[in-house]
Amino acid sequence: MSFSPLLSDLIQALRCLPGVGQKSAQRMALHLLERQRDAGQKLGNVLLEALEKIQHCSVCRNFSETPLCSICEDTKRYSHTLCIVETPADVLAIEQTGTYRGQYFLLLGRLSPLDGIGPKALGLDQLLDRCQHPQLEEVILATNLTVEGEATAHYITNLLQPLPIKISRIAYGVPMGGELEYVDGSTLSRALAARLPIEKGCES
Amino acid sequence: MSFSPLLSDLIQALRCLPGVGQKSAQRMALHLLERQRDAGQKLGNVLLEALEKIQHCSVCRNFSETPLCSICEDTKRYSHTLCIVETPADVLAIEQTGTYRGQYFLLLGRLSPLDGIGPKALGLDQLLDRCQHPQLEEVILATNLTVEGEATAHYITNLLQPLPIKISRIAYGVPMGGELEYVDGSTLSRALAARLPIEKGCES
Repeated sequence: MSFSPLLSDLIQALRCLPGVGQKSAQRMALHLLERQRDAGQKLGNVLLEALEKIQHCSVCRNFSETPLCSICEDTKRYSHTLCIVETPADVLAIEQTGTYRGQYFLLLGRLSPLDGIGPKALGLDQLLDRCQHPQLEEVILATNLTVEGEATAHYITNLLQPLPIKISRIAYGVPMGGELEYVDGSTLSRALAARLPIEKGCES
Repeated sequence: MSFSPLLSDLIQALRCLPGVGQKSAQRMALHLLERQRDAGQKLGNVLLEALEKIQHCSVCRNFSETPLCSICEDTKRYSHTLCIVETPADVLAIEQTGTYRGQYFLLLGRLSPLDGIGPKALGLDQLLDRCQHPQLEEVILATNLTVEGEATAHYITNLLQPLPIKISRIAYGVPMGGELEYVDGSTLSRALAARLPIEKGCES
């Protein structure tokens, strides 16, 4: 014996969530049925609606239920900088800093030939078109500092090199609040190599 | 800026799942949209169907989409023992041992006066009715070995005492594979107090 057929189906279906195995799915299903029936109902409805309506923004490729996302629609944002990131979560992380006011382009992945993810899947044709916009002055490569992210940044650099725009990469180094003793060697050697001059009279 | 309104709704709705906070909900929503749209669709449908159809079995109070659950319907199971557990997950745990062939009764909680959970909420009236069944010989109290579970077992013992049935409690002791060095003191003292005689000729 196990649970009733419908309950087993629900447990099985919950396992599509990342990081959710058999035991967690079981706990989630029982929790929803025991204590959160209204919230569960709402989750079911919102999930179906979101999956039906949310597509990609036609300009930056972020998730959006409208053809243009709220950032691309915002006329107050600068159109002279374009930040290239891997995922929607990266956009959120940068937006939460409140310091960047330019545009975005999402790769929705990173180059990974072994997984069959090549330049096509990352929309690099679309990126190349966009980088030919006359107002664009700078492209900031903000892919992750992982091996794949670095390779992707390298590939895009080569691709955009012929264009008359500045290409930059987010800085590597010791994170704020980091203690040298606990920072890994490769970060530390990069931080030493990329050391910045301190201007006299104002430390920054 | 944050995510689009519908995506924010989805993230908010996912937080009703146990153990899922803002960051996990975000990861789940993006994962479903990016990579598991079909599975997400299925999850939404199954969730709504389950919440609509799954109610409690009228006899044992386990979750079931039919008025009688598969265990209560099974005529091959013994009707002379009744095992009292707290939750559907406990039924599954006992069923998975494959050693119990009797009936169940689910409290769907434990006595907890501070949370407003009294005898009524645990269906003890229904339990008392059921224990007057002429074929019933033994009631096994398998509530958790926590303070509330113990209090609940104690309360039910007092309730059923007048009836002509045997009342037993699952054994306490050192778990299988347990090393005495690492077992907590209260378990160990209970295990010593409840020591079992070894019959000569057959160790058990």
